[in-house]
Amino acid sequence: MSAAIVGVGMHPFGRFGDKSAIEMGVDAARAALVDARAQWQDIDLMLCAHMYAGTGAGHHISTQLGATGIPIVNLENACSSGGAALRTAVMAISSGMAEVVLVVGIEKMPRGFMDMNYFEPWRRAAGRAVNPAQFAYAIRRHMYDHGTTEHQLALVSVKNHANGVHNPNALFRKAVTVEEVLESRPVCDPLRLLMLCSPDEGAAAAVVASTRGAQRFRADCVAIAGTGLATARYDQSIGEHMPTCSPVGAGSPSATRRAAQQAYETAGIGPEDLDFAEVQDTDSGTEIISCEELGLCDVGEGGMMVESGTSWIGGRLPVNPSGGLLSRGEPVGASGLGQVAEAVWQLRGNAGPRQVVGARVALTHTLGAGGNACVIILKADNPFTNGAANGHTQ
Amino acid sequence: MSAAIVGVGMHPFGRFGDKSAIEMGVDAARAALVDARAQWQDIDLMLCAHMYAGTGAGHHISTQLGATGIPIVNLENACSSGGAALRTAVMAISSGMAEVVLVVGIEKMPRGFMDMNYFEPWRRAAGRAVNPAQFAYAIRRHMYDHGTTEHQLALVSVKNHANGVHNPNALFRKAVTVEEVLESRPVCDPLRLLMLCSPDEGAAAAVVASTRGAQRFRADCVAIAGTGLATARYDQSIGEHMPTCSPVGAGSPSATRRAAQQAYETAGIGPEDLDFAEVQDTDSGTEIISCEELGLCDVGEGGMMVESGTSWIGGRLPVNPSGGLLSRGEPVGASGLGQVAEAVWQLRGNAGPRQVVGARVALTHTLGAGGNACVIILKADNPFTNGAANGHTQ
Repeated sequence: MSAAIVGVGMHPFGRFGDKSAIEMGVDAARAALVDARAQWQDIDLMLCAHMYAGTGAGHHISTQLGATGIPIVNLENACSSGGAALRTAVMAISSGMAEVVLVVGIEKMPRGFMDMNYFEPWRRAAGRAVNPAQFAYAIRRHMYDHGTTEHQLALVSVKNHANGVHNPNALFRKAVTVEEVLESRPVCDPLRLLMLCSPDEGAAAAVVASTRGAQRFRADCVAIAGTGLATARYDQSIGEHMPTCSPVGAGSPSATRRAAQQAYETAGIGPEDLDFAEVQDTDSGTEIISCEELGLCDVGEGGMMVESGTSWIGGRLPVNPSGGLLSRGEPVGASGLGQVAEAVWQLRGNAGPRQVVGARVALTHTLGAGGNACVIILKADNPFTNGAANGHTQ
Repeated sequence: MSAAIVGVGMHPFGRFGDKSAIEMGVDAARAALVDARAQWQDIDLMLCAHMYAGTGAGHHISTQLGATGIPIVNLENACSSGGAALRTAVMAISSGMAEVVLVVGIEKMPRGFMDMNYFEPWRRAAGRAVNPAQFAYAIRRHMYDHGTTEHQLALVSVKNHANGVHNPNALFRKAVTVEEVLESRPVCDPLRLLMLCSPDEGAAAAVVASTRGAQRFRADCVAIAGTGLATARYDQSIGEHMPTCSPVGAGSPSATRRAAQQAYETAGIGPEDLDFAEVQDTDSGTEIISCEELGLCDVGEGGMMVESGTSWIGGRLPVNPSGGLLSRGEPVGASGLGQVAEAVWQLRGNAGPRQVVGARVALTHTLGAGGNACVIILKADNPFTNGAANGHTQ
């Protein structure tokens, strides 16, 4: 690995009327360039992650930034689009075919997106169950196997909403109580409305450079220590707990486990070295299961991880200090890079009231349709940055 | 550059009723694996190029091939999707993050695709002109500047249809005469129906390996000598001849020129070294203009290149021996890899009655919406192959 993130930027996640995904992407890209102390003319490859923004989305963003003629590639990996794009940037830099890469993730979730033909093969493969139903199957089985409780599911939501209060880029900035979560509308048993994330809109961007090239930009860069991208069966997005429609692939490692293993191996870092993690909390159950699959706790201990305080800010291993998807919502193509932006701010010590004090090593995790998971491990690369060297708080 | 194509496969381009793009992709992928003497289990990264096949298209294909858990990324670069995917495979291999990559391009062009919101920003940028109108503007200007004639436009179609007769993977396998072309229905002056390619369906795939890894597979591999990917302005897809809607970017090199320059430089090969080329002939005019921008002839000589016989099979530099898009149609995500499959068969000496005798070096070129062009330069890598070493004719 020889790539570092020298700047990040976000367009807040939320709902923005007629503003297009392209316009949000331009804003995030400009913010990342400013943050990196870089110019658009420094970029020699641009990658654009999205699902619904139409053909040539990245090309359209580039036209707003200026016609420099660089190669641009658009990528789509459902919820893991941003992570897959960041990993592709690492490939580009490691190959020597690019030195400074702008990665942009954008999304404006369309109304009724689950009914679009986009999802049809996936839904067929899952017996036509919609996403929340699939999540519900998985965590219900986990409750049966491990004694995970509805109270623990509620606590995941309480924790993440508490963190999100301090995140200016979050959709929901309101704390909730266990009672409010458990009294919110049932969606798919045992999941209730406040245990599920909301589709929304937004953009996030990162400037990635070779470690040599990074010297031209801001000093407190963050190293991309390891990446992993993996797939399970198409109908097995939620890990081993998801009932499969056919025996093929059942019992094989989940996409999250595979991606985590790759990322830990390439980074030479284990879960015990992490200071915090941004984990796919499409719903409370997915956070609990994913924490186990990422090795953040033992199998069956995901519920206790939140109940014991371990995964809260101030705990041994905070999970989703940004507020997670439960607070930020999930603009699919932007979500993974939103995690990365949060992790970079944390590792620079710029996360304000949601700062994980002394954070040096972070993991980000996405898990999406098509059974694809992406894990990124980031490492503060400069001994002078984790504090006040850079006064800017985001 | 250190990547070689060890196998290619195609699902024919045409119209196939209810058969899905995913199913065609599975067929092409299996054919490429067989051609490479490789197993699906040998693949450690899969890239899937498409525009309209829905989220996780590559993931869905992989489920049919077997759940091996490898990373999969879906890419979209309009008409250059396949080329961009092949270039990304080269990056992956050069970075050391993958050793054997399966690249699959698929498409089933939907009815009324030009009216889909996918194209909306592009059409807005081009003053709402549909594709054939944009092509017509460009070649009309070329005719004014350089004296290119309708007869020459007709000859491009005659040449490519004559080649396509011998291509079992082509949509149209019927020769046409100059008179038939000039009497076909006018679409956008000066372009007539038989001067325009047709949207259709199909898939193509390639197995790409590091030159070291390639030794495990079939002996007569083809080296990827150089690649280039570049963009023009979003509204400037057709090169310098396209009237721009704003002065920014006008006069700057076209996407094709930029991509060609990159590819020639990385390959250390010039246009004078080429034995044939597969060039984006979305319409007869685009082939003429692209031949000039690729340096296959002087500026203004694109019309004479076809009239003099230079670009016919048997001429000094055959263009589109496959029959081009005019014969094969354009299944957008599959088209670029269809060119690559053709080039590999030619460089192995397996192209049957459309063989360019003694071909050792080839160029493929795509140009698409969003002003993005991709150029690939391929080189026969084995001195024993260009003849009968491999009896198989495709």
